[in-house]
Amino acid sequence: MDVLSRAHALERAGRHVVHLEIGEPDFTAPEPVVEAGVRALREGRTAYTATLGLPALREAIAAHYAARFARQVAVECVVVTAGASGGLLTVAALYIDAGDEVLVPDPGYPGYRHFVRAFEGRARALDVSAADNFQPTAAMVRAAWGGRTKGLILGSPSNPTGTLIERAELARIAEFIASRGGVLIVDEIYQGLTYGAEPWTALGLPGEVVVVNSFSKYFCMTGWRLGWVVLPPHAVRGFEKLAQHLFISAPAAAQHAACAAFSPESLAILERRRGEFARRRDLLLPALKEASLAVPVEPHGAFYIYADCGRDAREYCIQLLEREAVAATPGVDFGANGTAHHVRFAYTRALGELEEAARRIKRFAACAPSA
Amino acid sequence: MDVLSRAHALERAGRHVVHLEIGEPDFTAPEPVVEAGVRALREGRTAYTATLGLPALREAIAAHYAARFARQVAVECVVVTAGASGGLLTVAALYIDAGDEVLVPDPGYPGYRHFVRAFEGRARALDVSAADNFQPTAAMVRAAWGGRTKGLILGSPSNPTGTLIERAELARIAEFIASRGGVLIVDEIYQGLTYGAEPWTALGLPGEVVVVNSFSKYFCMTGWRLGWVVLPPHAVRGFEKLAQHLFISAPAAAQHAACAAFSPESLAILERRRGEFARRRDLLLPALKEASLAVPVEPHGAFYIYADCGRDAREYCIQLLEREAVAATPGVDFGANGTAHHVRFAYTRALGELEEAARRIKRFAACAPSA
Repeated sequence: MDVLSRAHALERAGRHVVHLEIGEPDFTAPEPVVEAGVRALREGRTAYTATLGLPALREAIAAHYAARFARQVAVECVVVTAGASGGLLTVAALYIDAGDEVLVPDPGYPGYRHFVRAFEGRARALDVSAADNFQPTAAMVRAAWGGRTKGLILGSPSNPTGTLIERAELARIAEFIASRGGVLIVDEIYQGLTYGAEPWTALGLPGEVVVVNSFSKYFCMTGWRLGWVVLPPHAVRGFEKLAQHLFISAPAAAQHAACAAFSPESLAILERRRGEFARRRDLLLPALKEASLAVPVEPHGAFYIYADCGRDAREYCIQLLEREAVAATPGVDFGANGTAHHVRFAYTRALGELEEAARRIKRFAACAPSA
Repeated sequence: MDVLSRAHALERAGRHVVHLEIGEPDFTAPEPVVEAGVRALREGRTAYTATLGLPALREAIAAHYAARFARQVAVECVVVTAGASGGLLTVAALYIDAGDEVLVPDPGYPGYRHFVRAFEGRARALDVSAADNFQPTAAMVRAAWGGRTKGLILGSPSNPTGTLIERAELARIAEFIASRGGVLIVDEIYQGLTYGAEPWTALGLPGEVVVVNSFSKYFCMTGWRLGWVVLPPHAVRGFEKLAQHLFISAPAAAQHAACAAFSPESLAILERRRGEFARRRDLLLPALKEASLAVPVEPHGAFYIYADCGRDAREYCIQLLEREAVAATPGVDFGANGTAHHVRFAYTRALGELEEAARRIKRFAACAPSA
């Protein structure tokens, strides 16, 4: 946030800032989604919906799992939420009692800790490293599991590292957690945004598995505030009661619009954009390496590169912004484990902007050696 | 919810159900709001906004307080939320620690209890009665205040009673709470929907006063999920941090649309609708009395009539629905204090429907005397 406000100040002073700190796509919703939203607004389909979401949207999401991931998901288990944030919040409210401990990866999305703490739970960090794709392992989970441990939250693809957990490892984790009667919460909000890796879902793994997803990233609908959760059948009624009280319903027009997100036309647009994200990654990744930034694990997902800058990353980000007007996010925003030397670069800008960023970052490296 | 699902079942079976159980306006957003929303969608103004809301919308809300209520509100203290629900949730997260007690009126909006409990607080009921407009008094608050009491939440106009608290009484309450270092949270989501009573705001009362409001009711924008909160200046930063983590931002297109809600054209539409709500109240209120329902306090706000049916109200509601296909809400949904004999009737349907409802309710009373 410091970086963002300083970047805006530089822009007001007339500088051309390249934004590599922004965790949302520069694309807006596909045209069919926008027009479905327009129709909903004009036809007044803007009342509260059922708390669990429009039946048509829940069905579309379930059908998407079948079509894309060959995974059968019961419509009743799909619930629509006010963004993945609304989903994570309600899931946290559902599963976490005061004093419960929840394991979260470090580095990882800071929201996980905040949702746990909001409900008086304790977030316990799992120190993940490049050796394990910056993802938890079954051994880590086993070692960290204690008497008050309620479960694990992880994201795959991960923010900030862009790395995916291996399916076999997640299966081992799911089995262990099931053996302890815990809950495995998998944040799949970057699902679909993978490059050189096939997207898959944690659904179908054994035990109490909750999957959180969103229309924000792959579907490019951030400000529409729409997401979904897939729950074990027995958890749906409890989730509904909480969501009824805490949210009433997710935004109505956004739900009508999102029904159009799974159309062949929309998916074709989104797949072209995925190709564009892949090209961006393929431009930025070697450029960062040429600028003496170490990227020990090649990221295959989301739109992030998590790089070791070899020195204090706050300092690095501030200087890179002041001298070259390139904004990036210091790793400390994502935890305490080795984050002090890491920087998150988001490739959410067009190729031309990224080329300019690459030039600037290399020039910066040439003038201010990283070590 | 039982009533609602049974009402839907009757409709599927071909019966014409009159819905007096619905707590949302039958009007949709004014045309200028809809068209501003359409423009935002088509122009792609659908990214995350600042967590505290679009500056233009915060300014419009502050200006509304000046124009409508002659109350100067600093723009910085106005924060935009994902519905009043998002506002209440964040306010609860901000003020309530585990074990804290918060006073809530009984009968009252059940959400208050749920938000308090979600953050491990304890909701303590204040038994409000017809003698005090179904609103808390300073004497009640003083008597109930204990060592762990953190504050009071109340709604004015109230759901389910449609009654307003007197300004002088609320001032006394505010002074007492200020003397104890507590927080007074006033839910003004039905503000503007008053009939024979001038709308006013709790803003400006002494002490830590938080006002929660919404675009759902007066502005007829339920499913857009947009509200706002006015905070004491020192609380804004804490609120922002929580909202950033828990919500990221309120829906973007809804915010752009809502900027048009305060235009003279929109307000003229909304004032005409207020006249319509007044006519509905004036039709339904005497009809209920003719049907042997007691309404000890004339409601001057919201769109609810809270009536004593003189017998078990669940039974009353079920029979009224089965025999006359009129849906209403049993009072037990709103608390435990005298609610068992009360029914909430919402006048959120057109006059023709209300006339039909009045006929049916009177016929029902004639066949099944209330005592």
